[in-house]
Amino acid sequence: MLIPFKAIDWRDNKIILLDQTLIPASEEYVAYDCVEPLIEAIQRLVVRGAPALGVAGAFGVVIVLDEAHRKNWSHDQREKALDALGNARPTAVNLGWAVEKIRKLISLGRDAVLEGAYQLAAEDKQSCIDMGNIGADWFIKTLGEKPLTFLTHCNTGSLGTTGTGTALGVIREMHNRRLVKEVYVDETRPLLQGSRLTAWELMKSNIPYRIEADGAAAMAILSGRIDAALIGADRIAKNGDSANKIGSLSVALACHAAGIPFLVVAPESSVDRSLETGSEIHIEFRSDEELTYFKGVQVAPIGAKTFNPAFDITPAKYISAVITELGAYEISMGETL
Amino acid sequence: MLIPFKAIDWRDNKIILLDQTLIPASEEYVAYDCVEPLIEAIQRLVVRGAPALGVAGAFGVVIVLDEAHRKNWSHDQREKALDALGNARPTAVNLGWAVEKIRKLISLGRDAVLEGAYQLAAEDKQSCIDMGNIGADWFIKTLGEKPLTFLTHCNTGSLGTTGTGTALGVIREMHNRRLVKEVYVDETRPLLQGSRLTAWELMKSNIPYRIEADGAAAMAILSGRIDAALIGADRIAKNGDSANKIGSLSVALACHAAGIPFLVVAPESSVDRSLETGSEIHIEFRSDEELTYFKGVQVAPIGAKTFNPAFDITPAKYISAVITELGAYEISMGETL
Repeated sequence: MLIPFKAIDWRDNKIILLDQTLIPASEEYVAYDCVEPLIEAIQRLVVRGAPALGVAGAFGVVIVLDEAHRKNWSHDQREKALDALGNARPTAVNLGWAVEKIRKLISLGRDAVLEGAYQLAAEDKQSCIDMGNIGADWFIKTLGEKPLTFLTHCNTGSLGTTGTGTALGVIREMHNRRLVKEVYVDETRPLLQGSRLTAWELMKSNIPYRIEADGAAAMAILSGRIDAALIGADRIAKNGDSANKIGSLSVALACHAAGIPFLVVAPESSVDRSLETGSEIHIEFRSDEELTYFKGVQVAPIGAKTFNPAFDITPAKYISAVITELGAYEISMGETL
Repeated sequence: MLIPFKAIDWRDNKIILLDQTLIPASEEYVAYDCVEPLIEAIQRLVVRGAPALGVAGAFGVVIVLDEAHRKNWSHDQREKALDALGNARPTAVNLGWAVEKIRKLISLGRDAVLEGAYQLAAEDKQSCIDMGNIGADWFIKTLGEKPLTFLTHCNTGSLGTTGTGTALGVIREMHNRRLVKEVYVDETRPLLQGSRLTAWELMKSNIPYRIEADGAAAMAILSGRIDAALIGADRIAKNGDSANKIGSLSVALACHAAGIPFLVVAPESSVDRSLETGSEIHIEFRSDEELTYFKGVQVAPIGAKTFNPAFDITPAKYISAVITELGAYEISMGETL
């Protein structure tokens, strides 16, 4: 499928990032050939999404090599720059993982490093294609070959990967097969990744969609408007319990009550078989200001406390299937990861 | 209980409204002694909430009488002003109902009209007290006499009534009895009645609270942080199915999954025994702009369609009890309204 934009690209020895902080108001690309502004861009969420951050880190190693060469950096200066790049967002494991993986190739020369970065991006792209096909096949097997209305939460598409995406990759593949009637997009408070990013992606690809408040998902589902819901995952425990953007659990409960499929789509790298259940997954809590201010406008009493977890955990019993690039695991039917 | 503010008051022959459009940033009161600015205030949501709108309409009849007297209006001019007041918000049945009820007293003289408005306000206030006591007694009977953590959605308090509120009235009564540990307040997208209004009310009354995204409610409930959830209702069918602010259904599903009480608190006037089930309740859909813009800032693609119902319907089977000023109906246990 042709994606009409690239969250991250490598051109003329520069990393090109689509500035996601400006979406949906405008689509602007910024080129980076120095590590400091690249780190600043990663921290400002110009680029986001675990796989995209990994690819940014991988090509970032090439940026560091080239800058070190241009500016005659010492070995120490270069190593410090690589450390800073890998640690630009401490909770984003993919970023540090990719930088460590690619910097090991430095002794083999710049060509090997660049080749490694390209390969990492290609693997991400291929795993999106595989998840898309496996997910689409699962829907046809389970619900028959007919156009469906989907519901999704947060952004799991081409803005967070170098390919078609995870859950949104499945929706894109269903669209390729002319099997998407419409997509209901949860706005995804507090950061609005749904209304800002997912809606923009679907609009760019001419896939019919509508936006809803997160609280409207249950009514959409229980009133019979939705055939299935799909989300991504930040981490999946061995038993199938899945951590994903806050609000995912509500969608799962509504699908369970309505008796429609609820799918988690994520690469194998998100499956952490060292964790027996979801209760072992560490949940990040975020700042009060994400809820008490909106673009600088006060929307709650000064000093209000909040309950602001970034993720929730959907128990395996509510998940019809986990889709990875290796297959569809029907864990609520007793299959294991 | 002493409420440290009044959403609506009558003083020196004027209606005094707390301007709810400015909360939580500031607390400003505006006096009205002419009908046209009063209607404009009602339409701008300076005052909101079904019972408060009824009381505004009732005292508004006095405003019209006095203005007609001062300005030597004809009978026709006066009747037109009363019609305009009653229709200021067509979907707010309480407003038109109160204006019609009180204007019938005009033939008895101004004193009778003013007395009628006072009585309507007093009845609203008393029904809040009764619901508060019945609800608090229900919690003590059901969960024991111990401090509890509650979750609520939208605003059901002293800003939407002339008393302590409906669901929030129960919470206030529990607080009087020193039985509130903390209140989790759903921000209530898209209009943020939770973070703007409910949080402000609780702050003013020194009741401990924290705000959460609507999507975080399920995690708060299923992680064991919440003892019970309470909401209001816009309309309740004969079988107990309840229409309330969009997002209520999600809270009910999570409470059901966690096995904790989910209560609907509303006056008898909200119970519509002419409707057999919730499927007969008409649901209002609101504008796309409520979701695609935030205080003038674009947060979605231009022209994005939305699914934006103002209310959802919680099936009776998920409701532990409906509390009205006449009693607690345990409808999920087979009791009827």
